[in-house]
Amino acid sequence: MTIRNAIYTQSGGMTAVINASACGLIEAARSDPKRIGKLFAGRNGILGVLREELFDTSKESDEDIAALRETPGGAFGSCRYKLPEPDPDLPVYRRLLAVFKAHDIGFFFCNGGGDSQDTAWKVSQVCARTGYQMQCLGIPKTVDNDLPCTDCCPGFGSVAKYVATSIREADLDVASMCSSSTKVFIMEVMGRHAGWIAAAAGLAAATPLDAPHIILFPEIAFNADHFLSRVQQLVSELGYCVIVASEGVRYDDGRFLADADGKDAFGHVQLGGVAPLLATVIRSRLGYKCHWAVADYLQRAARHIASATDVAQAYALGRAAVHMAVAGKDAVMLVIVRESGLAYGWHLDTVPLHEVANRERPLPSEYIASDGFAISTAARSYLQPLIHGEDHPRYRDGLPLYVRLRNELTPPLLQGYAG
Amino acid sequence: MTIRNAIYTQSGGMTAVINASACGLIEAARSDPKRIGKLFAGRNGILGVLREELFDTSKESDEDIAALRETPGGAFGSCRYKLPEPDPDLPVYRRLLAVFKAHDIGFFFCNGGGDSQDTAWKVSQVCARTGYQMQCLGIPKTVDNDLPCTDCCPGFGSVAKYVATSIREADLDVASMCSSSTKVFIMEVMGRHAGWIAAAAGLAAATPLDAPHIILFPEIAFNADHFLSRVQQLVSELGYCVIVASEGVRYDDGRFLADADGKDAFGHVQLGGVAPLLATVIRSRLGYKCHWAVADYLQRAARHIASATDVAQAYALGRAAVHMAVAGKDAVMLVIVRESGLAYGWHLDTVPLHEVANRERPLPSEYIASDGFAISTAARSYLQPLIHGEDHPRYRDGLPLYVRLRNELTPPLLQGYAG
Repeated sequence: MTIRNAIYTQSGGMTAVINASACGLIEAARSDPKRIGKLFAGRNGILGVLREELFDTSKESDEDIAALRETPGGAFGSCRYKLPEPDPDLPVYRRLLAVFKAHDIGFFFCNGGGDSQDTAWKVSQVCARTGYQMQCLGIPKTVDNDLPCTDCCPGFGSVAKYVATSIREADLDVASMCSSSTKVFIMEVMGRHAGWIAAAAGLAAATPLDAPHIILFPEIAFNADHFLSRVQQLVSELGYCVIVASEGVRYDDGRFLADADGKDAFGHVQLGGVAPLLATVIRSRLGYKCHWAVADYLQRAARHIASATDVAQAYALGRAAVHMAVAGKDAVMLVIVRESGLAYGWHLDTVPLHEVANRERPLPSEYIASDGFAISTAARSYLQPLIHGEDHPRYRDGLPLYVRLRNELTPPLLQGYAG
Repeated sequence: MTIRNAIYTQSGGMTAVINASACGLIEAARSDPKRIGKLFAGRNGILGVLREELFDTSKESDEDIAALRETPGGAFGSCRYKLPEPDPDLPVYRRLLAVFKAHDIGFFFCNGGGDSQDTAWKVSQVCARTGYQMQCLGIPKTVDNDLPCTDCCPGFGSVAKYVATSIREADLDVASMCSSSTKVFIMEVMGRHAGWIAAAAGLAAATPLDAPHIILFPEIAFNADHFLSRVQQLVSELGYCVIVASEGVRYDDGRFLADADGKDAFGHVQLGGVAPLLATVIRSRLGYKCHWAVADYLQRAARHIASATDVAQAYALGRAAVHMAVAGKDAVMLVIVRESGLAYGWHLDTVPLHEVANRERPLPSEYIASDGFAISTAARSYLQPLIHGEDHPRYRDGLPLYVRLRNELTPPLLQGYAG
């Protein structure tokens, strides 16, 4: 067996656990030096490969690599970048191949969402067509939980745990205050194209009286009158109302409620943000005192409340990517398979990259309750195991102890890239 | 010694640890049945006393009371209500005295911020003037940390830990993304009148390069040009910039940046929220991609990331309130005293209520760095111990296990109150 080098990239939006995949992958590579030589990480994803900006992960201590398991964000930097259609004659692909050859790269691990799997698939095709021998493996990651073929996506379980916990906590706060103060609380969550994260907030409700009392999904056209009458009904019955709104909520003509700097259907100019918009509408139409929160990046970076299941899966995917690569797998994405049976169980497998690229998994319509404002029992069954277990990071001086790597660039062997 | 009954009230905005005070107080009262008979809790604070809506805490199990220690919000409901000047002839005070007499109340424990201590002080004066024998004790609580005489206020340490943790996590996310995406992240925090919470976010920075890179305090008049040039400088030097903005940031003429539904100095109409406003200004003037978060109630309800120091102090205050009451203390607020010495130490004491009422403790000017955008070393020394230690709640099915009490009302003995 020959020893070849490897490149690992992180791309797209960050999560609380993508570094756990990096940790698993680096640890597995270090334990197999007879197959994998140097493991490089692209600085800011595929852009770092193009620019020949490759971090030499061998410069990092075992201790720092272990700490990646509990550090949010992307330790090597990420990017939003889409490769053109795979054509070996295009300068961008000629450059990638030159970098691969210069550093004797035999393994390419691409850790990300849909665009990243698209990158892995395109690189794989170009290598195959030019006869450059390299194994390309995709490692899933996205808080949006919208990759096909896998039961869930690493990153999602931790966001799910964060939003459900936050709503459970806000519920108790507003319930205490509603008699003489705030009647309505709105939390806006991520998920511009699908309501996975909004649905996860529904886990907070242990009984039908618990928050969230209304979930606004991107999948259900927003009807202001219907919404306002439900809010009014809840406030009169419970004394208050806690609402979860996806950032992707839209009118039936497809326009987003929160299109920045536009006028909404109520004539209000707004700055972007579904939650402040809904608060203004409720205040002006129903006269209730409202509070609202927009967690934005806090939700996807919240490693302090990560799901132990999510961390374990992310880590296992990183390790398995190396094992599968040295076992000969190529042009595949690793996936999480849910096992049948009453107790939750999972294992890893692979699917061909061409089955993954440019497909999105929508929130199934049967996951939304018939009134359009809640999750169904089926959704609860699917979601529940994904937030299971706690994986508290270590703390120092009262704060989570996260690592920043040295990130030493390996000396470039090629001319600079002007692409 | 005679046995007399007691009333406990929670009031003002909620915190992650006010129920820890309730827990300590109820547990201490239960262990001293020869001095304290029934312990009632006002439903929604002093309003419940006026309405003779008194929860009988003896109906709660020891297990549920113990669980209060790790449950956010106010288990008995809160209110925002200010009593008039103390005059025993006013109907409101005649009613309070009637309720006290009817239920043989000899102890009144008022758990809250400035308005609550004002309530305790007024009730105390009316009882004294009318010869009704009752001991009134205030228990401090407020995330705003603005009560005088006490080193800190229960609730603040946990918000401080939440905001500093959130900023540390968002820092790692934005640092990963900034090369090709978001350059600026803004988190809005509570504290309309003082910058205590904004200052606490400063603890996230372990080095001068760490977030928050800019803190906007209510105490420092907002200068847009100065602010924007600092943002620009940071983005060019670090590649990105993370900003913490107090909701109370104002212009030098005293107007809040975030006055709801008004036009700001830039001519933008906005819905309230400093963070979205700043994002719009940065986007339009500097062209940077911005993300923003407003945590609102999430920050003060976040029991899952509570400070162990804060929880311990809140609990100890509840217990000590009972001990001090049976020892004869009256018309006092309990305070936390920081002990001198290198290691952080604290003990409890009392101050007369009249020294507390209607006074606020501002953020000392020496806690703000000379450039107005950061905290000083003195601030760090003061703040650091308050976020020390973790006090993870129990979890079930992946979510914190918070308690909801039975909250059984004791049968009323008086006519209804129309006040």
